[in-house]
Amino acid sequence: MSKEYTVAIVGATGAVGREFIKIFEEKSLPIKKLLLFASEKSFGTTIPFKNQELQVETLNDTSFINADISLFSAGGAISKKYAPIAKNSSCLVIDNSSTWRMDKSCPLIIPEVNASALKKHSGIIANPNCSTIQLLTALAPIHNAVGLKRIVVSTYQSVSGSGQKGIDELESQVFQLFNNQELEPQVYPHPIAFNCIPHIDTFLDDEYTKEEHKMADETAKIFESKEIKVTATCVRVPVFYGHSISVNIETCEKITAKNARAILTQAPGVSVFDNPKNNIYPTPIDVASTDLVYVGRIREDSTINNGLNLWVASDNIRKGAALNAIQIM
Amino acid sequence: MSKEYTVAIVGATGAVGREFIKIFEEKSLPIKKLLLFASEKSFGTTIPFKNQELQVETLNDTSFINADISLFSAGGAISKKYAPIAKNSSCLVIDNSSTWRMDKSCPLIIPEVNASALKKHSGIIANPNCSTIQLLTALAPIHNAVGLKRIVVSTYQSVSGSGQKGIDELESQVFQLFNNQELEPQVYPHPIAFNCIPHIDTFLDDEYTKEEHKMADETAKIFESKEIKVTATCVRVPVFYGHSISVNIETCEKITAKNARAILTQAPGVSVFDNPKNNIYPTPIDVASTDLVYVGRIREDSTINNGLNLWVASDNIRKGAALNAIQIM
Repeated sequence: MSKEYTVAIVGATGAVGREFIKIFEEKSLPIKKLLLFASEKSFGTTIPFKNQELQVETLNDTSFINADISLFSAGGAISKKYAPIAKNSSCLVIDNSSTWRMDKSCPLIIPEVNASALKKHSGIIANPNCSTIQLLTALAPIHNAVGLKRIVVSTYQSVSGSGQKGIDELESQVFQLFNNQELEPQVYPHPIAFNCIPHIDTFLDDEYTKEEHKMADETAKIFESKEIKVTATCVRVPVFYGHSISVNIETCEKITAKNARAILTQAPGVSVFDNPKNNIYPTPIDVASTDLVYVGRIREDSTINNGLNLWVASDNIRKGAALNAIQIM
Repeated sequence: MSKEYTVAIVGATGAVGREFIKIFEEKSLPIKKLLLFASEKSFGTTIPFKNQELQVETLNDTSFINADISLFSAGGAISKKYAPIAKNSSCLVIDNSSTWRMDKSCPLIIPEVNASALKKHSGIIANPNCSTIQLLTALAPIHNAVGLKRIVVSTYQSVSGSGQKGIDELESQVFQLFNNQELEPQVYPHPIAFNCIPHIDTFLDDEYTKEEHKMADETAKIFESKEIKVTATCVRVPVFYGHSISVNIETCEKITAKNARAILTQAPGVSVFDNPKNNIYPTPIDVASTDLVYVGRIREDSTINNGLNLWVASDNIRKGAALNAIQIM
């Protein structure tokens, strides 16, 4: 990129929005100007960026006229309304909500996995769900080597996956508990402090959550295969940053743990942390604020012919959201 | 039971030991006398029981001479040394450690599941691993109805599973973090506050942990079947009380979610909490201090022919340890 770009961030005051700005400060990217947008309640807020104080604005129909690229992370309703407006202003949209992910005209991209699908875009590119990103970044190299048949996952998802309000909820509940106060859950239907809640996003008629469906549907789209079966149980855990996933896979051909480890060690965007006898495996605290998808506990599952268990952890706000979108950009 | 018994508790000051005493106070059991034993560092401690202050003693070779029944929960080494001494003193042993679980002469009992195996005991009865107890209490009714073929589990295990020291470690780390102090992990190899650690008990040569092996081996022994395949990933989470398990099963014959729910509703020791649209599913905070195994998120897994997903939660110190041992007694 020799050109410099004007980039709009929609949802600039949220957890992912702040991370976009942090990554722009850390990495040298050809950014001419940054335009920050958020809801009315953030009106008047300023955010520091490279020795300037940038004013946060509210969106309107002309907001994208001078922007080359827009990064959306302000929820589905805003994306649904404003992504087409941005697109019509010739501003490329990279959207972190679930609104456009299954739309056939919108590529759903993990750069390490299916960058080639970018060619087909028509103005809106979708960023996958955080859990899907880390799962498929870890599994793509294995899929390419031996083919994936079935994936059984149980997730351990941090509260930052619900945005800043999830972080605030866990923090305030811990304070309330340690001060003997009554808990008042607001973001989650049950207390999250020192608890696990098997419920992320809303329940559908088949009693799976939308989050669980996303993992299956997005896997099919990204791998361009309806043959790979995915069944998921998504669980919120009292962790601030970093999602973890317990993954059981059945592959088409046999792969040993040793070979899987060798393949993953070479894979883009992946780091193998797998020396259990020395207590080396990824934990969410270790991976928070880093860019990669970490894989450990790689071991053969002898209960089926071609089985493998893995443990995958990554920073859900970085690789699971902001960083992946910036990589797409 | 018309007779009254003298009961010895070995490990009386630990998390499970205290729970034995609590349950004895709650429930009317024919206890004539309670003898409390713990390590030398607890010497001189007294514990209140029914308006008395009982003195905690240290064990010796004659400790069991006047006891009818002993409940051991003081770690494997103590059980290995003193369970045979108790047995030779004609004191029935119910042991909560893993020492005797796979010994052919020792029945491994979940009263709701395989009480009939008690007949074969010869003085030492083993209490299963906490996760195994709640898993099999929930799965036995389904196994009896349609046969289990394969079980894939990921656990969310609370720190009380490591005893009082696990509880203390989580509490002190939360204090340290909220006071900006350096964390000093002592019980676990990584910080547990706001983290998940995919490591419970020690790693074996195949890179599974002992805990993961226990779930497979104990399932085979309790169900008296080597045909049921179990693959497990065991994870410590920052929860004080209550283990949860994400369970994916393949059954021999098809069972619908509706039928599984109906069978579990009738099952001994089980409570079905499964109305997700009203946010009803078990969470560890809800199940702590209760006696049952709670099952929710029961739904068919269409990625295989006879698949079912479930979420199982129970108080690991009660049903997962102390209560199960007292039920055996």
